[in-house]
Amino acid sequence: MKKKIAITLGDPSSIGPEIVLKSFLNNKFDPDKFILIGNKASVLANGISFPKEIEFVEIMPEVHNFETGKITKVSGEVSFRSLELACDMANKSEISAIVTAPVSKESINLAGHHFSGQTEILEHFLSRNGEKAEMLFVSKDFRVLLLTRHVPVSKVPSLITFDFVVSKINELSSQLKKHFRINNPNIALCALNPHAGEGGLIGDEEINVLIPAVEKLQTDGINISGPYPADMLFSKAAKAFKEGTQPYDCYVSCFHDQGLCAVKTIDVGNTVNTTIGLSVIRTSPAHGTAFDIAGKGIADCSSMTAAIKLAIELAC
Amino acid sequence: MKKKIAITLGDPSSIGPEIVLKSFLNNKFDPDKFILIGNKASVLANGISFPKEIEFVEIMPEVHNFETGKITKVSGEVSFRSLELACDMANKSEISAIVTAPVSKESINLAGHHFSGQTEILEHFLSRNGEKAEMLFVSKDFRVLLLTRHVPVSKVPSLITFDFVVSKINELSSQLKKHFRINNPNIALCALNPHAGEGGLIGDEEINVLIPAVEKLQTDGINISGPYPADMLFSKAAKAFKEGTQPYDCYVSCFHDQGLCAVKTIDVGNTVNTTIGLSVIRTSPAHGTAFDIAGKGIADCSSMTAAIKLAIELAC
Repeated sequence: MKKKIAITLGDPSSIGPEIVLKSFLNNKFDPDKFILIGNKASVLANGISFPKEIEFVEIMPEVHNFETGKITKVSGEVSFRSLELACDMANKSEISAIVTAPVSKESINLAGHHFSGQTEILEHFLSRNGEKAEMLFVSKDFRVLLLTRHVPVSKVPSLITFDFVVSKINELSSQLKKHFRINNPNIALCALNPHAGEGGLIGDEEINVLIPAVEKLQTDGINISGPYPADMLFSKAAKAFKEGTQPYDCYVSCFHDQGLCAVKTIDVGNTVNTTIGLSVIRTSPAHGTAFDIAGKGIADCSSMTAAIKLAIELAC
Repeated sequence: MKKKIAITLGDPSSIGPEIVLKSFLNNKFDPDKFILIGNKASVLANGISFPKEIEFVEIMPEVHNFETGKITKVSGEVSFRSLELACDMANKSEISAIVTAPVSKESINLAGHHFSGQTEILEHFLSRNGEKAEMLFVSKDFRVLLLTRHVPVSKVPSLITFDFVVSKINELSSQLKKHFRINNPNIALCALNPHAGEGGLIGDEEINVLIPAVEKLQTDGINISGPYPADMLFSKAAKAFKEGTQPYDCYVSCFHDQGLCAVKTIDVGNTVNTTIGLSVIRTSPAHGTAFDIAGKGIADCSSMTAAIKLAIELAC
């Protein structure tokens, strides 16, 4: 029998359970393909009837109430244990992919689990043999990899080293071949600094790190160019997105806001956050817990739906 | 007689002269309203006949040849002197606004003028009484101010201090009232770090600097909120842009790529780079020299046209 896809419902006080259930109501997903992981009370609190035909693994069934839209220890604990269980299933090769609804890192930390993001939790439980999680945002043929993720801006430059860039992009190229079935992926690298450092006038990381890294990767046979000024590169990507064809198979961004401010404006609401590099593929909507609208029944499930569809595609 | 608007043709080896002249060919701008500043050979090199009815002030008329698409000392010198002359005219109150075509900072530096950008050159010549140039990107009612501009990412966090943020945003609010005639401008501030620092888990600048600065500004009567995660804020702005109405009169970004990766994807090609805070308003297309397509006659003049139109509107 084909392995199932696990879906974690995310933070029980957030829009997580709502968007997962709405995705199932709005789409004809085959219920036999999925296992949902979460707390049932958080589903029922949204007034959505639970589709009985889907396998459900309950986390902390003794908890029946969550404070909607609030950062709480118990919601953090449910969020964390849901992910832990999904990873456990993946490590036992029981599932083919993981789809995750949003969690609150503050709630998870309040519950005593010190991680800077969901991707880092997955990396902690899933990485064997030193595998590293990579955060890839996918919207049709527009793909953006983040070199650094949930780190303060002040720490970014020191993380962008020659070895780091070369190893991340080598791994990206092989993951694009493996999961997305792209031959010889065409990769464009964003500069760290404005205007790609303007020949050393605005920072020296391009000259000292990024240009040598690109040259090394090219020598290794990777189809990469750059570093390009990020705003210029994403402006081209935005134009290409409207025209339906991208000049590059993947854009590599040096840090969170550089990549994400482009991703979330180019395709509002439909981007999927994908984690590659681990033993199973993971997809997730590219938005947060939206505590401000939790429990109101007005959350938009389109990014979650896109995440489930991409998991089906990549897990096959 | 009403004062004219000065337009500098930018780098003579770039698309600058081409996009200025194309804007005049494609639009019925009143020639009596403008003074062009640049080198005539760079205009003629583009095969565009020069509109004789516009006043033209020539820079380095002894130079008749420029290397198209190249970084050269002489093109840097022409670029720099064009700006210097425009500023001189502004300081003598002879003009009402400046529109600038793109320059190459590398060429300008090669010519011995050490500035990190055109805005910094204007600030150098135009600022009296300690006025500071502010870089505001404008596309219809979508406006983004950059708190820091052409600085390496490694230097950004140390520049974002309480006094700096409070003074910049106070100035922004009064400039929006003065030039854009907006009563009580509604301003949204981007966080410096991913996820607005996630309560201190991803950097402490939000807790130590940005939140106190917003509270102080609110106490001073400024209509401001934030700091918000930048990607989330710009995702809302992108959605609002499509719908034709912005929830905020202005977004404030902490650094170059955070703001510009959003600006250049939300409205590809039509954004105007505006400098406020100096004795005259300055507008400019929000793109660079495009050396790769210089001299080919294929440059898109829409951002330059938008810059000229906005200068007419704001200078009135």
